[in-house]
Amino acid sequence: MSAPCIFCRIIKGEIPSFKLFESDKVFAFLDIQPLSRGHALVIPKFHGAKLTDIPDDHLTEILPVAKKIAQVTGAQDFNILQNNGRIAHQVVDHVHFHMIPKPNETEGLGVGWPAQATDMDKLKALHEELKSKI
Amino acid sequence: MSAPCIFCRIIKGEIPSFKLFESDKVFAFLDIQPLSRGHALVIPKFHGAKLTDIPDDHLTEILPVAKKIAQVTGAQDFNILQNNGRIAHQVVDHVHFHMIPKPNETEGLGVGWPAQATDMDKLKALHEELKSKI
Repeated sequence: MSAPCIFCRIIKGEIPSFKLFESDKVFAFLDIQPLSRGHALVIPKFHGAKLTDIPDDHLTEILPVAKKIAQVTGAQDFNILQNNGRIAHQVVDHVHFHMIPKPNETEGLGVGWPAQATDMDKLKALHEELKSKI
Repeated sequence: MSAPCIFCRIIKGEIPSFKLFESDKVFAFLDIQPLSRGHALVIPKFHGAKLTDIPDDHLTEILPVAKKIAQVTGAQDFNILQNNGRIAHQVVDHVHFHMIPKPNETEGLGVGWPAQATDMDKLKALHEELKSKI
């Protein structure tokens, strides 16, 4: 039997948290290892490891809640980040959206951006492929 | 008069794009300077620079669309990222959510994570402050 999910236990109140918001489908709380003041997590109560595991109706309220939390922190600049998979920096296997204020260069999220050259032929072929699946 | 927003022009079809999805409120297309194969943008049609500028009902469909695009790309690992402000790596001042596949260490989003030490007293004070505003 696998260990109970730490975020499911937070939702149930079995582990204390600095709760900011709760509804039928969404729970939000402060990250206790923040990248900056106000760093918070917004999670669906529905348990799933990756975004693709969460039913649509459990996703609709996430961004309005993240927005509200950004507003009350007073953050002017901030990042919304949701990681899927270890290689993509996910640590807890329950979908969570970070709202991370970016007050200055050193605090908050660091963003690495290894942009590739624009290749219109490759993009066109990919576009055709994805359109046929969507 | 300020220059027209490039994403508003893409929505209107004045600038071509590799469109993946369109509804009343949401538009999605391939990023032409991708960080990895399948890198796409999901945007509200409602024009606003930051997440806090977008009405809630223009935010509800964003994540289901990002999820659908992640599914059709076949990406197992990926990041969802939305940047607010120059310092937070925002370049175009129209809210956009990146869906960035993370196929390996070198391609896709680079994540810098300057976590701060846990300070329960500071977190408790912040929690009280934010709860009173939410």
